[in-house]
Amino acid sequence: MPSYTAPIKDMQFILHDWLRVSEQDVPGYEDMDRDFTSAVLEEAGKVASEVLMPLNEVGDREGCVLENGVVRTPTGFKDAFQQMKDGGWTAMDCDPDFGGAGLPYLMHTAAQEPFVSANMAFNMYQGLTHGAYSAIYAHGSDAQKQTYLPKMTTCEWTGTMNLTEPHCGTDLGLMRTKAEPQDDGSFAITGQKIFISAGDHDLADNIIHLVLAKIPGGPEGIKGVSLFIVPKIMVNEDGALGDPNSLSVGKIEEKMGIHGNSTCVMNYDGATGFLVGEEHKGMRAMFTMMNEARMGVGLQGYAQAEVAYQNAVIYANDRLQGRDVTGDKNPDGPADPLIVHPDIRRNLMEQKSFLEGARALTYWGSSLIDRSHRLDDKEADGLVSLMTPVVKGFLTDKGFEYAVAAQQVYGGHGYIEEWGMSQFARDARIAMIYEGANGVQALDLVGRKLSQDGGKHVMAFFEMVKTFIKENDGNAALKADFLDPLKAASKDLQAAGMYFMQNGVKDPNHALAGSYDFMHMMGHVCFGYVWANMAKSAMEALEGGASDTAFYETKIATGRYYMARQLPATGMHLARINTGADTVMALEADQF
Amino acid sequence: MPSYTAPIKDMQFILHDWLRVSEQDVPGYEDMDRDFTSAVLEEAGKVASEVLMPLNEVGDREGCVLENGVVRTPTGFKDAFQQMKDGGWTAMDCDPDFGGAGLPYLMHTAAQEPFVSANMAFNMYQGLTHGAYSAIYAHGSDAQKQTYLPKMTTCEWTGTMNLTEPHCGTDLGLMRTKAEPQDDGSFAITGQKIFISAGDHDLADNIIHLVLAKIPGGPEGIKGVSLFIVPKIMVNEDGALGDPNSLSVGKIEEKMGIHGNSTCVMNYDGATGFLVGEEHKGMRAMFTMMNEARMGVGLQGYAQAEVAYQNAVIYANDRLQGRDVTGDKNPDGPADPLIVHPDIRRNLMEQKSFLEGARALTYWGSSLIDRSHRLDDKEADGLVSLMTPVVKGFLTDKGFEYAVAAQQVYGGHGYIEEWGMSQFARDARIAMIYEGANGVQALDLVGRKLSQDGGKHVMAFFEMVKTFIKENDGNAALKADFLDPLKAASKDLQAAGMYFMQNGVKDPNHALAGSYDFMHMMGHVCFGYVWANMAKSAMEALEGGASDTAFYETKIATGRYYMARQLPATGMHLARINTGADTVMALEADQF
Repeated sequence: MPSYTAPIKDMQFILHDWLRVSEQDVPGYEDMDRDFTSAVLEEAGKVASEVLMPLNEVGDREGCVLENGVVRTPTGFKDAFQQMKDGGWTAMDCDPDFGGAGLPYLMHTAAQEPFVSANMAFNMYQGLTHGAYSAIYAHGSDAQKQTYLPKMTTCEWTGTMNLTEPHCGTDLGLMRTKAEPQDDGSFAITGQKIFISAGDHDLADNIIHLVLAKIPGGPEGIKGVSLFIVPKIMVNEDGALGDPNSLSVGKIEEKMGIHGNSTCVMNYDGATGFLVGEEHKGMRAMFTMMNEARMGVGLQGYAQAEVAYQNAVIYANDRLQGRDVTGDKNPDGPADPLIVHPDIRRNLMEQKSFLEGARALTYWGSSLIDRSHRLDDKEADGLVSLMTPVVKGFLTDKGFEYAVAAQQVYGGHGYIEEWGMSQFARDARIAMIYEGANGVQALDLVGRKLSQDGGKHVMAFFEMVKTFIKENDGNAALKADFLDPLKAASKDLQAAGMYFMQNGVKDPNHALAGSYDFMHMMGHVCFGYVWANMAKSAMEALEGGASDTAFYETKIATGRYYMARQLPATGMHLARINTGADTVMALEADQF
Repeated sequence: MPSYTAPIKDMQFILHDWLRVSEQDVPGYEDMDRDFTSAVLEEAGKVASEVLMPLNEVGDREGCVLENGVVRTPTGFKDAFQQMKDGGWTAMDCDPDFGGAGLPYLMHTAAQEPFVSANMAFNMYQGLTHGAYSAIYAHGSDAQKQTYLPKMTTCEWTGTMNLTEPHCGTDLGLMRTKAEPQDDGSFAITGQKIFISAGDHDLADNIIHLVLAKIPGGPEGIKGVSLFIVPKIMVNEDGALGDPNSLSVGKIEEKMGIHGNSTCVMNYDGATGFLVGEEHKGMRAMFTMMNEARMGVGLQGYAQAEVAYQNAVIYANDRLQGRDVTGDKNPDGPADPLIVHPDIRRNLMEQKSFLEGARALTYWGSSLIDRSHRLDDKEADGLVSLMTPVVKGFLTDKGFEYAVAAQQVYGGHGYIEEWGMSQFARDARIAMIYEGANGVQALDLVGRKLSQDGGKHVMAFFEMVKTFIKENDGNAALKADFLDPLKAASKDLQAAGMYFMQNGVKDPNHALAGSYDFMHMMGHVCFGYVWANMAKSAMEALEGGASDTAFYETKIATGRYYMARQLPATGMHLARINTGADTVMALEADQF
């Protein structure tokens, strides 16, 4: 059975050695000192290891069952969910006015990681609720907030997001679900929604569905979409639960993974819905929480790779197979542990250098969200908007790739469900698809974000990288291993942007054909940037006489691996981008 | 439900336009003219589409069940297996002395592909039998051949390979299963073997297990391993079936995929076994059929990607979502088909250019095996030995990658089992692991094959590429798009080999840390070589006035994609290799 231990030291390193959060001017950060974050993360790690991890395999094996119209979650989920509520884990960054703890989003992000690593499917029940909370919080009326948010903060009521329909996912303008105005100001919602995560279950007293639908007579396409609150059970004026709403679960989908989460087909048959925000402005409401939601999916990507990595390391140290070619490392045993072999090392270093970079990037992105929300910092908001598709697309692609790589360390046992490595890969797979498939992320990045506000944000990104390199130019320890590769990679990225500018005007396909490569390339540059920063912080800690030298040296060595062996990918991506759309679009549709 | 159509034209193109098989001097090839191979492949494709494909999902869903010590295969497998026997598909390249058709291995390879695409798990029952047949054919006594081969040729009896034990897979020297000599010349086999594909089932009257075991008192480690025939049911002198042998199925493993194949734990409790070949020479017997077996697994890799690709193309043409940025392609419909989008194109072109290159490489490798066996061509044998780890490792890594990429085209539906795309990815995953995990293939390539016979074979490989480039240097149509990129990629590969030579001597880890990159790099160069060859053949066909111009133009365009967008990967791999072992081996085992 796989195990999980929250990587507290790595988390603390990012928060305090690199980001120095408690010194930042963001309201709420002043309380995030080492002791506080350590206490929170230790406790989250404990819940993850002891409560959620043991249920991960149970959830995968049992899945969710639809019986007489009601969904039953796997054994143990109910108790565990109650523990999450009791521990206040569902309310960490919610507004104190609605029962939340009001902590920064960064603290929420950091505390979420262990839960996601230990049991991604389980954690989605609260994750979706958090998303629905955010949408109502940002766009709901005061009355709606009073009615729903206190219960959603505690997860007494959970939430869902209803966007996809059988014939449309990415292209929501094709939506057919309709919302007909009623005399009492409510709407009658009718239609079918699919892929509704946590669509029904037995973990909460009520489920607050957020449903996108079209009000008849409104604008065509995406501009005619509105957002509605559609409770599973109607809420009376006094806040008590009333009659069931006119909605039902059509079926639970059989999926490749995340079996512990109920992915439902939801049928709305004239269900009572309440408009959130303005009519026809539903997509805007969705977009305001998209950065957070996509950042959260990026976190899922690396969090699954993290737990897979941890178990691969254990196996590589335990499993005796073959001998170190440079001399026996376990001469008294029948063979050396797998970890002596260079290709196993290469594999583990790939994973490790990715994971620590991914965590740093996600934390940093979360801190930008805090700056945006708590300081109304427009630059931070622009930067995080730019980076969001990179975090979502790159971290989930790579997260899956490395969950598969960790599985590979187990050889044949990696393919046997009993060992748990298959589940990590199968669960991680969904993160590349939902919340905007990764191809759509690439399109968002290249087709929208690069040119947003006149290209201001991407220029700020390059400026930030350049400034960092310049400011540390005299740092010899940093220069050859970190700054020079970062400079080269950043140059490649700029060249790609230049190619898009020069060629995308005459044919946008020249840019779009390179969008996926650009997303990965920018991922590598972001990683180069965070690794150079972390290496600098680790060197400073060592210079400052930090006692845990092994930890800081490991950090620097891991960063060196990334710079030396991962960053060269930018050259390949640039070469691909520079070929434009010619070979990509050469065939007619019927020639495939 | 996914569908499958054998890509006959692509297959025929490789056999006849490129390889011109019927003009080759290999005995048996003279009969492989266009009509003959077309008839065989059409018929194989029909069986694959109509008989095997409909059972693929059934096998995945039902899996195999162990009841009262006997394994039951999924619904329909028995009838389908009978059809495979009746059609002679199990005997194609077997020796006519034992009831086979005596066709070249290349014909066998080509005919296998549709079966593997349509139902990989099902096809393993005959695939394993073929492997066991080959081992007995090469190393068994005349009496053993007479007793077992006629029944194995027809799959009346199937075969298995028993290598792995719970504590050892790659490192078979640690094996514990013992074979104690008996007075009658047989051996009593005792031990546990795991991951035994097709270990038990209800498709055949008998199962001939090939078991590796150690004769007590023999040499230590891998040099003391012998190979034994251990029938499930003893065969009497008259050839009739006798008593059951002392062996049993411990359990069926729950796996990530290939559920239709029974992966068994096999317990041998003093089972009667018969030595194959010489004592302690069991590994040699295994190695003689390894090129074929690994080539077959490489085929599995791309064959799964092929069926996944076919369905992705159908979906990309059917699914309406979004609009072509350069102008509506389906103005009367609510949206354009997915295939208009450049990133969908990129994804499909990656898959297509991989698949056609993989098929070409596998056919070519199979033709080298024929040259080796039928002409005793040592150079062909050396070349195929060199390329075998590349075919196995690169084709299965990429095959899985592209099965996942095809799944991605489906968006959320790709994650739902009902659509079948998840199964292709899950089934393809095993090919990266079994028959030597891909890290072991890389080790074999760099640690053994490069220096084999004084480096003769790798030098012959480079010479072959160089000669092709030189001979076609005046071909302007070929030069810029094919020869120049091939030259550059080949130069990168040579530079990597040079790095290994210069640095591997003082520390072998400098070579081994780059072994995986080298395997992929060599895969790309092999693809560059086969694509340049295919492009040349297609150009010649067009110049010769071939009527199906669209087909040949598509072939060239697909090749151009590979050269422009896939070959640049060699530069990245070289950059990684050139960093040596320093960053890879920087950490102590406890620093992970």
